Amino acid sequence: MSQRVAVLMYADTEHSADALYFGRVSVPDAFVAFEARGKKYAIVSALEFTRVKRDSEFDVVLPLEQYHALARKTWPGKPIGPAEIIVLLARELNQHHILVGADFPAGLYSKLCARGLKPTIAEGHLFPSREIKTKQEAELLRLGNACSAAGIAAARDVLRLSKIKARKLIYQGSELTSERLRMVIEKTCLDHGGVSLNTIVAGGDQACDPHHRGTGPLRPNELIIIDVFPRLSANGYYGDMTRTFLKGVASDAQRNLAHAVLEAQKAALAKVKAGTPGKDVHQAVVDVFEKNHFETTTDAHGSRGFFHGTGHGLGLEVHEAPRMNKTAEAPLKLGTVVTVEPGLYYPGLGGCRFEDVVQVTAGKPRMLSEAPYTWEIK
Amino acid sequence: MSQRVAVLMYADTEHSADALYFGRVSVPDAFVAFEARGKKYAIVSALEFTRVKRDSEFDVVLPLEQYHALARKTWPGKPIGPAEIIVLLARELNQHHILVGADFPAGLYSKLCARGLKPTIAEGHLFPSREIKTKQEAELLRLGNACSAAGIAAARDVLRLSKIKARKLIYQGSELTSERLRMVIEKTCLDHGGVSLNTIVAGGDQACDPHHRGTGPLRPNELIIIDVFPRLSANGYYGDMTRTFLKGVASDAQRNLAHAVLEAQKAALAKVKAGTPGKDVHQAVVDVFEKNHFETTTDAHGSRGFFHGTGHGLGLEVHEAPRMNKTAEAPLKLGTVVTVEPGLYYPGLGGCRFEDVVQVTAGKPRMLSEAPYTWEIK
Repeated sequence: MSQRVAVLMYADTEHSADALYFGRVSVPDAFVAFEARGKKYAIVSALEFTRVKRDSEFDVVLPLEQYHALARKTWPGKPIGPAEIIVLLARELNQHHILVGADFPAGLYSKLCARGLKPTIAEGHLFPSREIKTKQEAELLRLGNACSAAGIAAARDVLRLSKIKARKLIYQGSELTSERLRMVIEKTCLDHGGVSLNTIVAGGDQACDPHHRGTGPLRPNELIIIDVFPRLSANGYYGDMTRTFLKGVASDAQRNLAHAVLEAQKAALAKVKAGTPGKDVHQAVVDVFEKNHFETTTDAHGSRGFFHGTGHGLGLEVHEAPRMNKTAEAPLKLGTVVTVEPGLYYPGLGGCRFEDVVQVTAGKPRMLSEAPYTWEIK
Repeated sequence: MSQRVAVLMYADTEHSADALYFGRVSVPDAFVAFEARGKKYAIVSALEFTRVKRDSEFDVVLPLEQYHALARKTWPGKPIGPAEIIVLLARELNQHHILVGADFPAGLYSKLCARGLKPTIAEGHLFPSREIKTKQEAELLRLGNACSAAGIAAARDVLRLSKIKARKLIYQGSELTSERLRMVIEKTCLDHGGVSLNTIVAGGDQACDPHHRGTGPLRPNELIIIDVFPRLSANGYYGDMTRTFLKGVASDAQRNLAHAVLEAQKAALAKVKAGTPGKDVHQAVVDVFEKNHFETTTDAHGSRGFFHGTGHGLGLEVHEAPRMNKTAEAPLKLGTVVTVEPGLYYPGLGGCRFEDVVQVTAGKPRMLSEAPYTWEIK
């Protein structure tokens, strides 16, 4: 007696990394994707049919219009939606045990239940294999990071060529802003095959909100955090790298901050290894910061110091499993790709973060990102 | 006895237009957003706290870490996740009736049920007001379309400047491809504040798959569909426009095709009006194509003719309610913004689509997109 569990998705590939991982084709509107007995099924409209049949990893591509017609016959006079289409497909394939992801839409879940097909909701990943990157996936993530690195290099060049005039940075005759520098980065990413959304170019105190994108003039002698996480248009894999720069002359306090972050990153990278819990990698960062007397505090105005995780999985999502933070008990798995990105943030002094991407091995992690760590630009 | 229904979201704003609409702030990781008695609540981590407090429309921003600590006390030794956080907030606000969207994650839905808080799942929009665009929203959609139009104009300039050499188009000394033209468009969109994903630049038979992005050399004397739907980085609103071009000399058949599509678009635009069912707008397109003897057929190889809807709502999603197709019974509402995009596709002859965006009024629709309809480029 085998429990043949079928896997069901209903999503577009822009929103669902699982659907993209499963079918390896971009479909802009939600569609039925189904795995049963090792075969991959898709039900798509005429608008997608030929392309999905040709370009995807689906074994069987079925025409949505035909299932709609059948559903109207099966439930005459009733409203027909994806639930009815899915029930018909499950019947046809004789599948009664359906597994869906935790992000499966609750509305459709409840309609399937009403039609007698109660899916099981996966705990954790729908496809646990997504966490373990193949050689080919690691190569795509390396390309994603090459795209990040190109954006960061372009930003560095702009800072290098900028002139300091009093409290301003002047580039090509006018004041350099976060917006202008972001534009340079994002165009460079396009040239390298990636689309960079929400690129962070945040100077001074703005950088102390780690998710502040940055706005307005960039200043000399201030730390500038540049965090670039483009998605490759061809395949959906991400890069995610951060460098911090300072145009002008750093103060001792800024230098201490940057050195502590770089030291913490080295300590964390040295810890990344198959079998090590994510929290141990995180602890290595905390230890370096404590040793260097960088305190982390939270009050009504927000947090200061080091108040985010050390890293996260990277793949078809920019933030995916595993996380490396103080509660991450699970041992890192062989082949996992994670960011390593300690940071320190003190309003008044500024913020600093360095982020690289590595693949977990049995020994030293494999670097999938590459860019210089020089941060002071005269 | 008033049924005080609270609205609950758990999503990041990149994936959930509802969450962005509700809080008007970009939050890259899933967070709890909650509306109770007219007040908007967010629970976010230290990483987001200051920024969300400052930049959003949330009335109350609560620290996630504090709720986590409380949850650990309330359920000692149990795993803590968003379900427990939400239950604590609902208790605190004395809210027992919770409404969630159809796209609410099923995993969290089922965990909330297990904790005794069974949400009601909305039929249709979680926020019906999203379909009706305010004056300010219409203005942002106009800006989104100005971004599309800038991309299309840049593409037209490249085609104008290209030289025909035998079966090739030569631009700046080398062969013009879909990829190169797409790059020009996407960089231009960036200059206009928008990020254009999956831009379609598809010539010849590629354009007969309406969602084919296009790849490889563009040819003279072939129809080239250019569909540009950028999202404005500042606010998340979209543009969505399509123009078809032909560099060289059109055949009579190509000319007939383009004229029929332009005629159909005019006929559809003339129908768009508050109170008119979407299917009537669609039917206007079908009628023009039938009158001009353009047949729609489907066989095992795919579909030919006109086999997609006439339009869709546009806002914080590129495809949102309402749809205008043959099954769209609902009357168009005052203030709705829709695309009007008839197209014809015949392998061997090519594809043609023109798409504009209008706001529904009591009379003539208000154009929110603007670009010339000239399609032949000598």
